[in-house]
Order: sequence, then structure tokens, then C-alpha cells
Amino acid sequence: MDNFTGQHILSVNQFDRVAVETVFDVADKMQPYANREKRTTVLEGAILGNLFFESSTRTRVSFGTAFNLLGGEVRETTGISSSALAKGESLYDTARVLSGYSDVITMRHPDAGSVAEFSEGSRVPVLNGGDGPNEHPTQALLDLYTIAKERASFGESIDNLHIAMIGDLKYGRTVHSLATMLCLFKNIKLTLISPNELQMPVSICDAITNAGHELIISDQLEGSVEADICYQTRIQQERFSSLQEADKYRGKFRLNQQIYTQHFKSKTVIMHPLPRDSRADANELDNDLNMHPNLAIFRQTDNGVLVRMALFALVLGVAEKISDFDRPVHWYSTKNTANN
Amino acid sequence: MDNFTGQHILSVNQFDRVAVETVFDVADKMQPYANREKRTTVLEGAILGNLFFESSTRTRVSFGTAFNLLGGEVRETTGISSSALAKGESLYDTARVLSGYSDVITMRHPDAGSVAEFSEGSRVPVLNGGDGPNEHPTQALLDLYTIAKERASFGESIDNLHIAMIGDLKYGRTVHSLATMLCLFKNIKLTLISPNELQMPVSICDAITNAGHELIISDQLEGSVEADICYQTRIQQERFSSLQEADKYRGKFRLNQQIYTQHFKSKTVIMHPLPRDSRADANELDNDLNMHPNLAIFRQTDNGVLVRMALFALVLGVAEKISDFDRPVHWYSTKNTANN
Amino acid sequence: MDNFTGQHILSVNQFDRVAVETVFDVADKMQPYANREKRTTVLEGAILGNLFFESSTRTRVSFGTAFNLLGGEVRETTGISSSALAKGESLYDTARVLSGYSDVITMRHPDAGSVAEFSEGSRVPVLNGGDGPNEHPTQALLDLYTIAKERASFGESIDNLHIAMIGDLKYGRTVHSLATMLCLFKNIKLTLISPNELQMPVSICDAITNAGHELIISDQLEGSVEADICYQTRIQQERFSSLQEADKYRGKFRLNQQIYTQHFKSKTVIMHPLPRDSRADANELDNDLNMHPNLAIFRQTDNGVLVRMALFALVLGVAEKISDFDRPVHWYSTKNTANN
Repeated sequence: MDNFTGQHILSVNQFDRVAVETVFDVADKMQPYANREKRTTVLEGAILGNLFFESSTRTRVSFGTAFNLLGGEVRETTGISSSALAKGESLYDTARVLSGYSDVITMRHPDAGSVAEFSEGSRVPVLNGGDGPNEHPTQALLDLYTIAKERASFGESIDNLHIAMIGDLKYGRTVHSLATMLCLFKNIKLTLISPNELQMPVSICDAITNAGHELIISDQLEGSVEADICYQTRIQQERFSSLQEADKYRGKFRLNQQIYTQHFKSKTVIMHPLPRDSRADANELDNDLNMHPNLAIFRQTDNGVLVRMALFALVLGVAEKISDFDRPVHWYSTKNTANN
Repeated sequence: MDNFTGQHILSVNQFDRVAVETVFDVADKMQPYANREKRTTVLEGAILGNLFFESSTRTRVSFGTAFNLLGGEVRETTGISSSALAKGESLYDTARVLSGYSDVITMRHPDAGSVAEFSEGSRVPVLNGGDGPNEHPTQALLDLYTIAKERASFGESIDNLHIAMIGDLKYGRTVHSLATMLCLFKNIKLTLISPNELQMPVSICDAITNAGHELIISDQLEGSVEADICYQTRIQQERFSSLQEADKYRGKFRLNQQIYTQHFKSKTVIMHPLPRDSRADANELDNDLNMHPNLAIFRQTDNGVLVRMALFALVLGVAEKISDFDRPVHWYSTKNTANN
Repeated sequence: MDNFTGQHILSVNQFDRVAVETVFDVADKMQPYANREKRTTVLEGAILGNLFFESSTRTRVSFGTAFNLLGGEVRETTGISSSALAKGESLYDTARVLSGYSDVITMRHPDAGSVAEFSEGSRVPVLNGGDGPNEHPTQALLDLYTIAKERASFGESIDNLHIAMIGDLKYGRTVHSLATMLCLFKNIKLTLISPNELQMPVSICDAITNAGHELIISDQLEGSVEADICYQTRIQQERFSSLQEADKYRGKFRLNQQIYTQHFKSKTVIMHPLPRDSRADANELDNDLNMHPNLAIFRQTDNGVLVRMALFALVLGVAEKISDFDRPVHWYSTKNTANN
């Protein structure tokens, strides 16, 4: 992808290393706006169609916030029963119609492939906000962006990373996408820890080894894992055939302060795609790590706003113009460190 | 209706020919904003209360978009169970309260007459976005506006039109309203094709003939229909007593490339209120016509934004001021032909 | 509370008399904006996270409107099933994440204490929009502000008020909060009229008498109630163990024109937290009083916008700057008396 302007963002496979770095460069420039040090009106008058045919509060609000921070307006729809799809309308028709109402569309839908199908009818760029078990490229980008920033704080880059992925690696869409994107980088070591039944799919493992990366597969967390990043996951109960089936794995591979200290080095950064399941029978990432400086899970969601702002700016062709529309912020914000 | 400022828009019966033409003149001026050639801030600071007590993604988003394109903000509510109506609040009270929160209200509700009742308590103008089987005036206006524009491209006006309406003419609210509005024009010929059980109501047929128009009623599509417009409809399954009852009629009067070529002249424009039911057992308007230049169904929904912008501008008294608040558009838009 | 900037607003107990008067002074300044005499852009670029994990159309839209009137944008979420909370996410995590997306949060939730718990994880100010049976401080403030304004129209202040509260005083959260706030003022007389089973909780009665106020408790409306304010309430059927249990009390203590004339003085102002239940079997406040000049129920909801604007302005530190960002209003508004 040489030029983002007017493009759909549907899959992590669209991105080469240069494209990823372009997104990250633009995301870096978004930080002062997210910090409320200033604001921009570059997209004033533009409309985002934020179409969530499957619920996801976090992702939906993150997209909407990112668009607002660029000065644009957001029109939303949530749920599938309330839409014309329930009256037998094709995704093509829905796309043709709704793309007439906005400048760019973000879409989440429970069916794999649905967002790509929708994009074929759309007259404006479509960003995939998750199509069931298939793709969620902005999550992969925000994860990778977080890794880049956390590594940069140690003077390191994504190259030469050692990452441990833990938990449900079969149904966890985010670990699939992240592993795929890591194939664009050099000399990565992946330690994959999961129950045998929930292992990373073979196709992704093959892609990793074909990229020349080192792969270690295990069904338990043991010894010293010299990882730079520990990427913990939730059992995706909604992807299992039944709750009972999911319950067999909930509560495995918990991470808490004691386990972290035992298995990881002191600079290992902890990530999680969120939400984490904090109920007693799951609790894959314990609250006793909440204050740990290496816990990057909320930096991840903050970075998601920056990455989504960057993608909007790129597909709408305004990435180079944003600061031309800078305005001051007049209210008190805890996010603006100049206030504190 | 001489002066729209501050008025409710509840019924097609409020419109005389001059009022219709006023709306269409203002709608024409909205095209550059919908095309993102420029934007306007005339309603910056104004609030639309977009109250959808019945689901309709398309209509709801279209109203919201239209208001955003004029520079205003949108506050929304969807669904009836979540509202105070479920706690026994009267429509009068709901109207009195919610009209305190906005500058204009658009409302959809499943009950006939509800929007008019609501408007009696409202302190701001109310636009009817559909009250069950009763009225949906903005749909009728966008249909008629589409006919006017399609006809204008052939150098013709609405007068002297021949329109064929096909399918469920009993429950199809849009065909009732459109037929009613056509009574304002001259020398119209209407060919109504439906199962005998789903014929156009007698009261509307009487109005058509009383207007001096020609009426042809048939229960099948046969021979050469020399219509300028073919207005196809969906079986409104949600208005039938049961799904089984609706199923008796689904799939009748399909239109596809072969049937279109057989029965219509080469310049016949195809319209449909949407959503069209594209499931195999219905499929009243086949996808093999999707690329046909005479298929106007997506021009209809685009025109809906223009008509709704026009109505907002008129009831809020800013129709003459819009271009005083023009601003440039800075982002890339496929809608702006200057970009292409 | 000396300084509102950056503070959470969780409980009426945070307010002393000076703080209440500060809110009311700022609310007074909001009137011209609510009347559309002018508008302000002071919060242009700011984002409200309007999180309604329990439905409340009125309160949700009121908060959103208030923020829009200050120039800000609103991102919303409604319902609890659609949120990550349903996947086992803690309120702490939800707060940490969602507070990254906005400048201030308003939140409603069915569980007592939930909003305070949420605020501990939030990185931005949180305003309690109602946490189940517990607190709803903005409702209490708008009630008290209404009393202050109604009294001011007679040249009186809140001090020396005689208020009658009628109906469900056990479950009615608003009467608890209002009675509590009245303890900040001087020489108040409260007449509490309810079925014995639905009396005001003892703890609140104690607070009232400890404040030196006069308390009269009765289980029926009789004789002449020399009240300045008659505060009528709805049976909160959703707080009862069953609908049958609630039904035992619905329809008691109705107020209509005849009862009002019989028991109250001609200047007694009628208030109600709304929604009022207008179904025949409840009808606690009859429609025959709708045109009565002393019926303040819709002035209450209008005042709610002013009070919420004031709280936003205060916690975001812009209360003194609002008029620096004044802009003219260009559209016709029935709210702007200069138009009429």
C-alpha cells in the first residue's frame, strides 16, 4: 500500500513494513491532540459512519473519539436486528445507501468476510472494525504500535523482539493478526503458550517460520521466559460452541504479581487486548498488577485512538495538513501534563 | 403552506404544488454540500433531537447526516422500551420535555397518529419520520424529487408522467403518499400492478381520478408498459398479520433484466423505496440490474439527504442564508467529482 | 467543595451551601444559551463520554444537550449487555479505558455505588447520572434550582420554604436527595405525605430534624397544606419486588385541579421529578393541570440543562470563560423570545 488516500483498510495483509511505519509516524503526530495540548479542525464538516452491527463499546467509542479529535462528526448504528439487513437487504445495498451518508465508514459485523463484501458496495473508504473471527486490523496495528513505543522507551525497535503469547491462541483473533504482522519485521522470537486444544493455527505458525522467525510452542508456563513482551489473552467464550466448552479453559494461565515475578524478567511489558475477564473463575490478568509500571494494557487502548486517528487522516488524505488547523484547548484536562 | 419557518412537517397533505417546489428548489442548492465541494456552518450550535421510537437505520442516519451537513449537532434515541413512554409517560409529556433539549425534532414511532400527537406538546418543529402505517412525508418528497430530477434529465417535468407502481400497494405506505402527492400535478397516468388482495386503497384511487388523472389497475405485469417510471415495492411483511400471510405474496412481480427489457421501454427509470428484499424467495428487484444506468434506487437515498437538508433549512428559517456560511472542504472525497 | 475543577460529582453530600450557590450562579449564566439568544464554542473539541449502562432517555439526552450547548461533542453508550462488563470486565478497567476517550464522563448504572467505584478508575471527572436507588445528584440540584427560581419570582429564597412531598417517599430517590440538600438551608418546613409503608427513611428524617427543620408526617392529604411547593412523585414500580406490590400504591395521592384547589394555596408551585405516570390506574398528576401557571414540571427539565451545563463548565474549569466564546445564533428558535 503506497498511498492510503481513498483506500479501504480491511486486513493486516494489506500492510507492508513501509505502510506500517507510515501509520506509526502519523500516529506519533496525534499525541498532542489526544493529550489535549491542542486540537485540530481539519475534518470539521466530515462525517464518520460508525456501523457496529455487532456490539463492541470500546472499539466503537475509540473510532468515534478518534474522528471527533480530528474535528469530524459521527453518525452511528448499533446492533443488527434494528437494521434493514433484518428485512433481507444485501450488504451491497446497505453499503451503497449508507456510504451516501458519510465520508468514511468504520464497520464491525459478526460474519467473517462481511466487511470486505460491504466495502465492494461502498462509495467511501471502509475501515474494518472486526468481522467476526476473521480480521480486526486496527487492533493489530495498535498492538504493534504499543510494542514499538514500549520498545522505543528501552532504545529498541520491533526487530529482535521476543514476545510470549499466552492463553487462547486458537480463537484469539488479535494474536493471529499480531503474529502475522510481526512477519514484516526481522529476527523475532515467539513463545506460544496455550492448552494443546487452543494452539495457534498451523497456517500462522508456518508464516512465522517462513519469515525466518523462531517459534517455541508449549502447553505450560514454566522456567524463565526471557520475553520482552508478555501478551496475555482472554478465553473468547463467545467463539466456543458452548459456555461449558469455554469453561474448560477459563482460569488457565493466569498471570499475577507472583507468577510474573517467577517467570518473567523485570522489564517484561505486559499486554492484553482487553477486555480482561476479572471474574474469579477466569481472572487471566490479576488486579494485583494494576499499578505495575510494565502493565501496558491501558497504554494500548490509548494508543488505539492515535492509530485510528492516523488511519482516518491517511485514508482521507489530510495527514500532512492536520497542524494547519490547530486550535488551542481552553478547558482543564488531566491528560494535558502542562496542567499538572 | 406559505411559510415553513417554525412549522411541523407531519403529512403529505400539508403540501400544495408551490410548497413542493419550494422544497425542491432548496434541495437543489444542497447538492454541492452533499458532494463535499464545500460545507456550511449555518446551523453550528443547533441541536436535532432524532427520536426513533421504531427502528429505521436508513431514515435515522439520513436525518442525522442532513443535520450534520448543515453544521448542527444530533442527539438521538432509539427504541421504545428504553424510554419513559414505557413508564406510562404520555406523548405530550415526552414532547414537552424533549423539545426543551433541541431546536428541531425528527420522530419515528410505530403508531399511526403518534407523531402528530407528539407535535402538539412540542415547543420546536417536528418532522414526521414515519408513524407506522400512516405517513412518511420525507420519503414521499424524496421519491417525488427523484422523479423530478430523473425527468429533468430528459427535459421533462413531473406533469405528463406515466408511472407504474408494482407489488404491495395496500400496505406500502410510500406508494400511498407518492400517489397522493402526484395529485398536485397535471395529466398523470398511473398503472397499478398488484395482487388483487394487495390493491391500492379505494380512497387513494378516488383522489387520483378526482385529480383528473388516468388510472389503470391490473393484477399482472403484461405487454408493454410505456411507463417513464417503474416504482417497485417490497412486501411489507411487518405489516401483515403473520409471516405466512406475507409469504403468499413474496416473490410475485419480480423485476430483473429480462423482465425489464420485455415489459418496459429503454428509458424507463426504476425506483424502489428500499430496503429491497434480496433473499432468494423475495428478490423483487434483481441484482442483475445493479449496474443499469436507469436504476435510480441509490440516487433516491442520496436525494433523501438533500430533501431533509431542505426541510431543516426551511423550518429553521435559514434556507436563504446557507451559502453565507460556506467553508472549504479539506479532505479527499470520492463524492467530489473535482477530485476524480 | 471549594474548587470544582477536575472533581467528580458523585453525591449530594459533596455540596455545602456555597457550592450549591456557585452551581446556581453559573446555571443562571447559561440561560441565554439555552434560549438560543447566542451560543458558545468554549468546549469545541472536548468530548463527553455519556455512559448509560441503564436506560434513561431524558437524563441521557439532557446531559448530551448540555454538553453540545457548550460546544462539545458527545460519544454515547446505552445498555449493559452490549458492553465489556458482560464479558467480565471490572468497572475499574472500563473506567480506565473509557476515560482515555473523553474529557469528562456522565454515567448511569443500575447498581448502588457503581459510579463511585467507576470514578476511582477514571482519569477524567465523572458526574453521577444515577446509580440505582442510591444517588442522582444532578436531579437534586435541578430540583433545588427550580425551587430557588420559583421562589425568586415571588421575591423569596430557599430559606423559610414550606415544601410538601407526596407519594412514594421510601423508594423515591429524588425526594431523599432533595430533602438532604434542604438541610443546607434555614428554617425549612417539610410536610411528608405517603402511605405508612412508603414513608421517608428514618435516617433522612433525622437529618432534617437535626438541621433544625420542622417535619410533619402524614398518611393522607387533608385540610389546607400551606406549602410553597408541592413535590409530587411517581410510584417507582421498578424498585418494588413485584408489579403487584407496586400496584397496591399506584393511584394513591392523585393530584388534579380539584384536589389542588381544595388543599393548596393559589401560589403553591407543583413539581414532579418526571416521568409522571399518566395511565388511568396511576395518574398521580392529572393533565387538567397542564396549563396551570404554577405547574413547574417542564421548567424543572429545562432547568436540568442549565444545571448540567453549569457542572460541566465548573469541572472543566471554563465557568468564567464561556462568554469569551460567544457566537450569534442564525436560525429561528421558538425558545428565543426575541423571535416571538
